[in-house]
Amino acid sequence: FDAPADGGTAPKLLFRQLFEKESSTYTYLLADVGHPDRPALLIDPVDKTVDRDLTLMKDLGLKLVYAMNTHCHADHVTGTGLIKIKMPGVKSIISKSSGAIADAYIEHGDKVYFGNLFLEVRATPGHTAGCVTYVTGDAPDQPQPRMAFTGDALLIRGCGRTDFQGGSSSQLYHSVHSQIFTLPGDTLLYPAHDYKGFTVSTVEEETKYNPRLTKDEEGFKNIMENLNLPYPKMIDVAVPANLVCGLQDVTLSAM
Amino acid sequence: FDAPADGGTAPKLLFRQLFEKESSTYTYLLADVGHPDRPALLIDPVDKTVDRDLTLMKDLGLKLVYAMNTHCHADHVTGTGLIKIKMPGVKSIISKSSGAIADAYIEHGDKVYFGNLFLEVRATPGHTAGCVTYVTGDAPDQPQPRMAFTGDALLIRGCGRTDFQGGSSSQLYHSVHSQIFTLPGDTLLYPAHDYKGFTVSTVEEETKYNPRLTKDEEGFKNIMENLNLPYPKMIDVAVPANLVCGLQDVTLSAM
Ligand SMILES: [Fe+2]
Ligand SMILES: [Fe+2]
Repeated sequence: FDAPADGGTAPKLLFRQLFEKESSTYTYLLADVGHPDRPALLIDPVDKTVDRDLTLMKDLGLKLVYAMNTHCHADHVTGTGLIKIKMPGVKSIISKSSGAIADAYIEHGDKVYFGNLFLEVRATPGHTAGCVTYVTGDAPDQPQPRMAFTGDALLIRGCGRTDFQGGSSSQLYHSVHSQIFTLPGDTLLYPAHDYKGFTVSTVEEETKYNPRLTKDEEGFKNIMENLNLPYPKMIDVAVPANLVCGLQDVTLSAM
Repeated sequence: FDAPADGGTAPKLLFRQLFEKESSTYTYLLADVGHPDRPALLIDPVDKTVDRDLTLMKDLGLKLVYAMNTHCHADHVTGTGLIKIKMPGVKSIISKSSGAIADAYIEHGDKVYFGNLFLEVRATPGHTAGCVTYVTGDAPDQPQPRMAFTGDALLIRGCGRTDFQGGSSSQLYHSVHSQIFTLPGDTLLYPAHDYKGFTVSTVEEETKYNPRLTKDEEGFKNIMENLNLPYPKMIDVAVPANLVCGLQDVTLSAM
């Protein structure tokens, strides 16, 4: 047993995966329950399930510090704004390149600490120009196996579409191959959505069985350019709302 | 590193939680990937997602040995019969007291081995007369924390209804308190359903925050007898089907 370098408590991850059925969105709760404050963060909270998530954190005795998004979503309204109204101390986080408003902007290479645990930020553009993947820390006292929260860059046996919001199939191909498939094979992959009832995958599995990303770049681009997907139902509501933290009906000065 | 007593390989759990959206059912995949055969079992498979589950097991190089049910479900058709048609070597398992047909019947106290891992059977009647909870083994080489697959006996912040299929609120109260709440506080609870997007809870959490089962017995019975739930949509299809492994249209001799 090694005490952390700061002389504090040994980090201990509490982890919960939460599902919003209508948009098939996964929200992730992570907390360091080894730390006396039990600091927590939420990745990709949804407006409709904010009360569920806040009640759960209260039950678990956690202190929510960050409400983070992997990108500016087009299929649901983020819960970050609502959370900040209910808990003004919480800080919202998104990438600078998303174009959305938040309390703090992260970039490739940044670390987000909660207690003695941290997430690394990896830029994984291609689904949108501002997509990032959050990856648990690479250090002896951080969770093993590692966990990657991929947003819509990489889905289980799939990936996010690349035909709007600054999407680029070529960029997505390179993002996944350079930033996600290079993680250790046992890294657990947690996407922002699943439509078939899968909850988790691994780097090893997706490098072998992802029907799109196992193709070469030309093959991948070919698939992505011929998906013929309908215009997203929610996009004209969700994107403007998510650019202002889900608070489209609230004046910005009130944030 | 201690070699298991049988001189074989050290057990290593591979675990996947899988969701069927229409009936909000969770199916659980467990395998011993420390064993050279990579033997696996499924708890509460659903007919509609059998192909997904079999493809996943093929991708993961697992050998499905058992398709088990926690009880005779009233809200969806089990996948066990379909699985046995596609993979005749697989054995179906259910409790004797469920009244349903299966290849093997389990009772309270039985152990179900897959490789060097095992599940303990605990009788938890009350939702139906034949409900069981499967709990991972209590031994140094078994997964820590323990995991309990509670079926509909205990749901996250809830429990199964007790007004049909031989249900009894008094019996359910005693089952949960004597068989589930006596497990270590950090035991992970995996129910057969969740309707709010929760994926897991713990014994500690449910003993503190379950709105029904934290009441005394009279209070619990009062709640359960005044739920005024509608007659289950699927029951007249699902129960007869599940009594014959989901193979209502197949002659039994073909099984
Ligand atoms: Fe997206
Ligand atoms: Fe049931």
